[in-house]
Amino acid sequence: MAQWEDNVRHVTPYTPGEQPRIPDIIKLNTNENPYPPSPAVAENLRAMDIDALRLYPDPAAGELTEAVAAHFGVEKDRVFVGVGSDDCLAMSFLAFFNSGRPVLFADITYSFYDVWAGLFGIPFETVPLADDFTLRPEDYFRENGGIIIASPNAPTGLLPGTDAIRQILEHNPGVVVIVDEAYIDFGGESVAGLTEEYENLLVVQTFSKSRSLAGMRIGCAVGSRKLIKYLSDVKYSFNSYTMNLPSICAGAAAIADEAYFEETRKKIIATRERSKQELRALGFTFPDSQANFIFASHPEVPARELFAALRQAGIIVRYFDKPRIDNYLRITVGTDAQMDALIAFLRKFLAERKEKKL
Amino acid sequence: MAQWEDNVRHVTPYTPGEQPRIPDIIKLNTNENPYPPSPAVAENLRAMDIDALRLYPDPAAGELTEAVAAHFGVEKDRVFVGVGSDDCLAMSFLAFFNSGRPVLFADITYSFYDVWAGLFGIPFETVPLADDFTLRPEDYFRENGGIIIASPNAPTGLLPGTDAIRQILEHNPGVVVIVDEAYIDFGGESVAGLTEEYENLLVVQTFSKSRSLAGMRIGCAVGSRKLIKYLSDVKYSFNSYTMNLPSICAGAAAIADEAYFEETRKKIIATRERSKQELRALGFTFPDSQANFIFASHPEVPARELFAALRQAGIIVRYFDKPRIDNYLRITVGTDAQMDALIAFLRKFLAERKEKKL
Repeated sequence: MAQWEDNVRHVTPYTPGEQPRIPDIIKLNTNENPYPPSPAVAENLRAMDIDALRLYPDPAAGELTEAVAAHFGVEKDRVFVGVGSDDCLAMSFLAFFNSGRPVLFADITYSFYDVWAGLFGIPFETVPLADDFTLRPEDYFRENGGIIIASPNAPTGLLPGTDAIRQILEHNPGVVVIVDEAYIDFGGESVAGLTEEYENLLVVQTFSKSRSLAGMRIGCAVGSRKLIKYLSDVKYSFNSYTMNLPSICAGAAAIADEAYFEETRKKIIATRERSKQELRALGFTFPDSQANFIFASHPEVPARELFAALRQAGIIVRYFDKPRIDNYLRITVGTDAQMDALIAFLRKFLAERKEKKL
Repeated sequence: MAQWEDNVRHVTPYTPGEQPRIPDIIKLNTNENPYPPSPAVAENLRAMDIDALRLYPDPAAGELTEAVAAHFGVEKDRVFVGVGSDDCLAMSFLAFFNSGRPVLFADITYSFYDVWAGLFGIPFETVPLADDFTLRPEDYFRENGGIIIASPNAPTGLLPGTDAIRQILEHNPGVVVIVDEAYIDFGGESVAGLTEEYENLLVVQTFSKSRSLAGMRIGCAVGSRKLIKYLSDVKYSFNSYTMNLPSICAGAAAIADEAYFEETRKKIIATRERSKQELRALGFTFPDSQANFIFASHPEVPARELFAALRQAGIIVRYFDKPRIDNYLRITVGTDAQMDALIAFLRKFLAERKEKKL
């Protein structure tokens, strides 16, 4: 190793789900929305002045920030926007978890939390979920350097619930509490309203799931004026202009189209509930997901085997080779047709496997 | 101050130049390109599949990375892309300046360097430029935790030259040396070729200036395979998907259109050289800029006064209220018509001022 390499930060990066660009694949591995973005997005992008790309974008992404503020019914100085919720969360870790005391998050949750902690040298402790993957608020009633909770949690899909989050806030006025609501629109109730009461609460959402804009990279956060100011200061110390012109145009259009948003999220919820019934009929068990994925396990067939068989059949789901969850598949809720294909394959596979074993 | 605020990172952010959206203003304050991006950018963006925005973009931004690699004539694993060169530089500070020893950069240079150092808690020492703003390589022949050099320098426009950079590299094999070539296409020779010889050299460029894509936020870096791997690991520990679909489409188109690039950069160089003559005739002095701006001072009129008068007349330039440079204006090179308007105003203003004083 060369001498200069001694000074380099050595990290273990997050591994995103695959993005294979193979046609005809059924892609149920990264919780994308099966429906295209609102037609207003296409309209706004088509109308965008391409010559204006020679100029820097508005550093405050005003048009987008205002649209997000209107959606949440708050002033725009209580809103932060970033390059996906990952950017909002990374900046938040850097801004808020600076005490030297360990940050707390669940042992089973979004696997980027420990990566950010590692990157910024933030001490952390994972808090085990109960055996049924539920979160026990009392586990967070102790000294810490900050808390982050995914609601609904990933990859389980379970909602901690507003009560649990409120209890955690009541016991933790001295640290910043982040609630990561990437999947909230598929069945939960946002705690964004609680930011009126708790100035140390930051609620983060994304346009990548319920607004079908994963390819545009837009996330947002709502919090008290103070919290957003601190977060913005860190952002402006990192990159003055994180949101490019197309993301400002597309994001503002997407969040303003409530009708399309309601239509597609309801379709996904309906497909999810039907898929749960079908999977249950095939013997699968799973937590009662309120997100756009189902975290399923089969009592007879190892998840790893199912994952490989599905892949062979051109159906890609997500498998985490990690303690406590290595016998589960995280299956994104796709269109009805995609879920029918998945169920049909699983039915056939399970039947043939049973036959072979007999 | 609430208790949670004790744990917050308090920083002094970078102040970007204003982005007023006033029509008919002559905007010469943020070194944007006066010409629109290549027509190929519009074509690629118009052809972009908007429905595909529902999917995550390629985390490696393959299409863009390959186009950049082809431009530099290197393998793609020697290229990094980011959300503007600011993103490339911020990630590089985080990745490479991790020794605890002070990082070195000029006392007069891009004013984001000390902000990144502050954000990440990196010790630094500024190295004074000579009185004529030239860089003395021997000032960098001492123990340090890394070096960053802007070439051409901002806001002076002066090129350190390949020889000086090579000398600095020869004396600093134990640290990463970053050369920030944001303005290199307006008159300098890139040292990207030196990355073949020095595996600790990272060369950073941007699409915001010579490629007219400030609004798209695209930057790139070229270095050894090892250096790019370390940098990518940090990026993947921060945000899996930094480059959205439009920036991948637009960036790939822009860097492939060498003919348009040559045409517009030559026009800007010609306008710059003519503007230098006109400014000189009005009594201004300035370093011999090789960038798309002129850093000008007048022996009789304070820069602050000129800045205010220009602003009043709807011509916005950049003024830095900082030691050693507080009597200079940084004037972006615009179109010929814009520069004519600037010169005409200055001629009239200086004449009227002289008259009043008599």
